[in-house]
Amino acid sequence: MTAPGTLYGLGVGPGDPELVTLKALRLLRACPVIAWPANPEGHSMARAVVAEWIHPGKIEVPIVMDFVSKGRESALAAYDAAADTLAGHLAEGRDAAVLCEGDPLFYGSFMYLLERLAGRFPVAIVPGITSVAACAAVAARPVVSLDEGLTVLPATLPEDALSARLAATEAAAVMKLGRHLPKVAAVLDRLGRAEGAVVVVRAGHEDQRVLSLPEALSEGVPYFSLLLTRNRP
Amino acid sequence: MTAPGTLYGLGVGPGDPELVTLKALRLLRACPVIAWPANPEGHSMARAVVAEWIHPGKIEVPIVMDFVSKGRESALAAYDAAADTLAGHLAEGRDAAVLCEGDPLFYGSFMYLLERLAGRFPVAIVPGITSVAACAAVAARPVVSLDEGLTVLPATLPEDALSARLAATEAAAVMKLGRHLPKVAAVLDRLGRAEGAVVVVRAGHEDQRVLSLPEALSEGVPYFSLLLTRNRP
Repeated sequence: MTAPGTLYGLGVGPGDPELVTLKALRLLRACPVIAWPANPEGHSMARAVVAEWIHPGKIEVPIVMDFVSKGRESALAAYDAAADTLAGHLAEGRDAAVLCEGDPLFYGSFMYLLERLAGRFPVAIVPGITSVAACAAVAARPVVSLDEGLTVLPATLPEDALSARLAATEAAAVMKLGRHLPKVAAVLDRLGRAEGAVVVVRAGHEDQRVLSLPEALSEGVPYFSLLLTRNRP
Repeated sequence: MTAPGTLYGLGVGPGDPELVTLKALRLLRACPVIAWPANPEGHSMARAVVAEWIHPGKIEVPIVMDFVSKGRESALAAYDAAADTLAGHLAEGRDAAVLCEGDPLFYGSFMYLLERLAGRFPVAIVPGITSVAACAAVAARPVVSLDEGLTVLPATLPEDALSARLAATEAAAVMKLGRHLPKVAAVLDRLGRAEGAVVVVRAGHEDQRVLSLPEALSEGVPYFSLLLTRNRP
């Protein structure tokens, strides 16, 4: 009987291939099967980050999803199908690496495969650089220090929830800004915390930028932008 | 006139040399000056992680601190002295890399050097794998997902502050457990969140372990342990 393969969740970081860890690179090269999430056009941000290291001859498993026009059920069906395909490879003894933007367990879709395959096969997870750490590095400012607490929130939350959570923390990172930025800015303004906030756009990519809140509001920012705020200077 | 060197804050991750990024490794090899925090005995966790890549001939700048017996003022004096030494090298055009456990800006002491040297010299920060991501990977469980918020807290906070913050969040990571674990456990117990919590000890090291809360309480855990809790299963 063949020993089953291992399912690897590989964090590939925020976008810069140099922000991949040595461990993720080694496993990417070693695994015969590589799965990656893709949009309806077949583009995969996670695959693009490590494309130079994916050698010909790998078995690739695209996980194509269309949350926006086909909804959550369709996406879950895509994970079911990918889990079945990966289970086949794992059962035949082939290790499989799932590429994950950022960190696999920090707002990542890897957890859908984890819950479908853990228990049935060996699993190992390689942590990745999160968007929070990447954005702070670009802005060169502390995320959180000493006895402060840090709260990480998606900007998609309702205004009153955002307000309560931000009022109760010393430091915060607000993710997924996009069209939610004016709501977040209004909350910070009422809390007297608008001035020190920075918005980081496309961290880890060549066109990364750091904007003040007024600058960000004026030009608008993409969905994958992140705001950092901290009570201390 | 010589162009000044760049100050690099290099995140080296939680302890496993393989969790260093390609970028941190490249800069570590390229910089002629390497600084690292050390305890009073001269041991440096950050240096130990990357020791195999520090070639002879580097100028090394140990930053020896003794918070415990000599207090905060003495530690700040150590940063003043290190900043002076590094400023000398930077002014003469030598790039200097400061090694940082985990991520330089996530509860890191790098910010003391950043505030002393930023503005005077070019600064670049290489983000690292945080203890939160490393511990979640070891435990193979999601930190946070979808529209949940994540709160990161030091266990050193007073019991009522811990309780209020943990009651208000879907997911949490509590750091620096050590002798504060019974206090954290009591808070989680009252909130009905003790059952799903896990404690990760020495993530990224060979003897890393995942414990339930009762196991952790029974055997005690070191200061650098981390608790993960999440409302969802």
